[in-house]
Amino acid sequence: MAKSLRLGIAGLGTVGVGLIKIIQDNADMLTMRTGTSISISAVSARSAGKDRGVDIAAYAWEDDPVALATRDDVDVFVELIGGDAGPALAATEAAIAAGKHVVTANKAMLALHGQALALAAEDAGVNLRFEAAVAGGIPIIKSLTEGLAGNNITRIMGVMNGTCNYILTRMETAGLSYDEVFEEANQLGYLEADPNLDVGGIDAAHKLVLLSAIAFGTQVDFDGAVLEGIGRITIEDIRAAGEMGYRIKLLGVTQMTDTGLSQTMRPCLVPQSSPLAQLDGGTNMIVVEGDSVGQVVLRGAGAGEGPTASAVIGDVMDIARGINIPVFGQPANTLKSAPAVQTAVESPFYIRLNLRDEAGAMAQVSTALADAGVSIDRMRQDGQQDATAPVLIETHPTSRQTLNAAIKAIEVTGVAIHSPVVLRIENL
Amino acid sequence: MAKSLRLGIAGLGTVGVGLIKIIQDNADMLTMRTGTSISISAVSARSAGKDRGVDIAAYAWEDDPVALATRDDVDVFVELIGGDAGPALAATEAAIAAGKHVVTANKAMLALHGQALALAAEDAGVNLRFEAAVAGGIPIIKSLTEGLAGNNITRIMGVMNGTCNYILTRMETAGLSYDEVFEEANQLGYLEADPNLDVGGIDAAHKLVLLSAIAFGTQVDFDGAVLEGIGRITIEDIRAAGEMGYRIKLLGVTQMTDTGLSQTMRPCLVPQSSPLAQLDGGTNMIVVEGDSVGQVVLRGAGAGEGPTASAVIGDVMDIARGINIPVFGQPANTLKSAPAVQTAVESPFYIRLNLRDEAGAMAQVSTALADAGVSIDRMRQDGQQDATAPVLIETHPTSRQTLNAAIKAIEVTGVAIHSPVVLRIENL
Repeated sequence: MAKSLRLGIAGLGTVGVGLIKIIQDNADMLTMRTGTSISISAVSARSAGKDRGVDIAAYAWEDDPVALATRDDVDVFVELIGGDAGPALAATEAAIAAGKHVVTANKAMLALHGQALALAAEDAGVNLRFEAAVAGGIPIIKSLTEGLAGNNITRIMGVMNGTCNYILTRMETAGLSYDEVFEEANQLGYLEADPNLDVGGIDAAHKLVLLSAIAFGTQVDFDGAVLEGIGRITIEDIRAAGEMGYRIKLLGVTQMTDTGLSQTMRPCLVPQSSPLAQLDGGTNMIVVEGDSVGQVVLRGAGAGEGPTASAVIGDVMDIARGINIPVFGQPANTLKSAPAVQTAVESPFYIRLNLRDEAGAMAQVSTALADAGVSIDRMRQDGQQDATAPVLIETHPTSRQTLNAAIKAIEVTGVAIHSPVVLRIENL
Repeated sequence: MAKSLRLGIAGLGTVGVGLIKIIQDNADMLTMRTGTSISISAVSARSAGKDRGVDIAAYAWEDDPVALATRDDVDVFVELIGGDAGPALAATEAAIAAGKHVVTANKAMLALHGQALALAAEDAGVNLRFEAAVAGGIPIIKSLTEGLAGNNITRIMGVMNGTCNYILTRMETAGLSYDEVFEEANQLGYLEADPNLDVGGIDAAHKLVLLSAIAFGTQVDFDGAVLEGIGRITIEDIRAAGEMGYRIKLLGVTQMTDTGLSQTMRPCLVPQSSPLAQLDGGTNMIVVEGDSVGQVVLRGAGAGEGPTASAVIGDVMDIARGINIPVFGQPANTLKSAPAVQTAVESPFYIRLNLRDEAGAMAQVSTALADAGVSIDRMRQDGQQDATAPVLIETHPTSRQTLNAAIKAIEVTGVAIHSPVVLRIENL
């Protein structure tokens, strides 16, 4: 006689619908694999009447997700509402307080409230699981928290925002400007209601800081992450990078240094031969480096109905199997608070700047770089006849701090028409 | 007050030594992450006196792994002896009978005795875990059994033997013959005592059949796997594949068909642009396809002290955390016995054959192919002045059965100097 596990699902967008399909279509398989009958007691969403392509008539309806989360016939509250606070947070808190397990796909909520929620869940003895919050169907949370748990993680890198990946790839292949592709993505419905969540790197950084917490045993620290969006990338940058043997990707890097935790989410140049460079559209990739395992790479769809629902049901199945481990892999009350720092690791940088059409402008840039201790590996300015054509510089390896000083010195000269675009080159 | 989990480790080769280092160097981290103090009670190996670079003086010594496996102060028996039967199997059976959990890196033992051992372990209520048996540090067993458990897996493909990968890559980059590189690998200590385990595809197939059992809910069936080694691959094959846009890899493919389970481990041509083609040396890659998740790719070191020990300690930590799920992801007594079949999926094929220097030889080959229903996409014979130069053929997509009939017909004509080399082209 199989045990039973009853879900309450709040949020019936693509992921919620995908989850319902899996549970309706694969009930026997889920029972076989978990020894537990997994069922849905109740659902909640903004509109009860909407046709979602799945039959939800058998499930109780709740207008209020908090009421859903605390129902007697709900063992696991599945939070697919989204948003870093509001109903998602209220219902999650209510579920934990009522002794319900929680499975969520909500990276924003966890990035901002993860520590408090983890403490509450562990106090209550319930699971709070979030595989679906990071990189869709890729089992990265499980891999980090369990499979690779015997490692001291040294660094994690990843491309984790499909929209940015789409925009950058589309600019390159279609030769379109950022604004044109942005508008195209908007028409296609690829952008969040607040597009800055995607193109500003915020969504991807939400994911990165969750990985940091697990990898380094630190409290989730979104405020400590350094963010830079893709809005200043031009088609010239993409072309120039290509000619130099690179592609531009919105890359997240987290690593623990001697002085603190460095978390960055920024557009970077990566070699065309790197697996990271070869990602198209919505594919995500995460590179984990551990002291024993070396480098492990995981790749898969970072979003979408099926992949994200796959992650949610995986978490539900773990709960059905009785697995209960700390939210971030060690008890939340043992997670340390690490100072946020920028890594001191040196790298080459790509610089684009437009100079005023005046004699000696280039010399002033060269002098500013040299005085700051930044040496130039290669430099070009196409269309020499047009003095306003952008100047593209690849530096020898240097630290971000040194480079920032050089950029400031260039700005002080007044020869640059706009603040230079600076992109780190990650040779991986 | 942390709980405790005491290990008995049998086999002190590289993996055993790696495991001891992790436990000695990271005791606090392991305790923090599992809430359990993980310690070593006793060890066993062939030679007690040998200097292995780790201090084992604090551990009891057992000459007999069966005695080790059944000690009162051992909770988990870690089997790193190797070999499909003999002491490894005897000690594993003894451990299970004595109510001990087992963690093993032994793919051969599980490929041949996995079903019986899983039944015994589940009867006894103990864990039998084997992340380290497949693809070293890549958490593929956990991903399949847990993270992706909500999927109907449709296909798994993988490059899972570093030695074959090394040989094929080295032949290509150094322009050396198979025999030369084989000897080189032998000198470097890369080969098993029985090299056919590697170059015959046996070791890789051992891994593949374990993945099949989890993916398809079937009893481990090594006898049903179709194996072909890399011993007939020549430098000409590698060069010809390269000129056609492919690289040759020992590729495992497992999929459930309407008529049964197809498991193949064979050298194949894969497009140079495929991530599989870009693997070097000891790097493994596994591609999992599921109905919800789509395609997930995992890449990492497939062998070696650190990566394999990382997988072993991951399993140990799961046991410390109280996780106990069925060995192959569903109860062993529910695993089905599926008939072994060859997939009917059509693909193009690469054929190399050397013809006798006689008039009409090529015409006879063409006729034999056409009569069997195999159509030629492209064909070449370099050095037309030398009639004995190999003929290279790429066919249009056809089934293996059709192709085999054509090859038999070619052999009957007697114009081929040797049995043609036939390699499947996998466009992935």
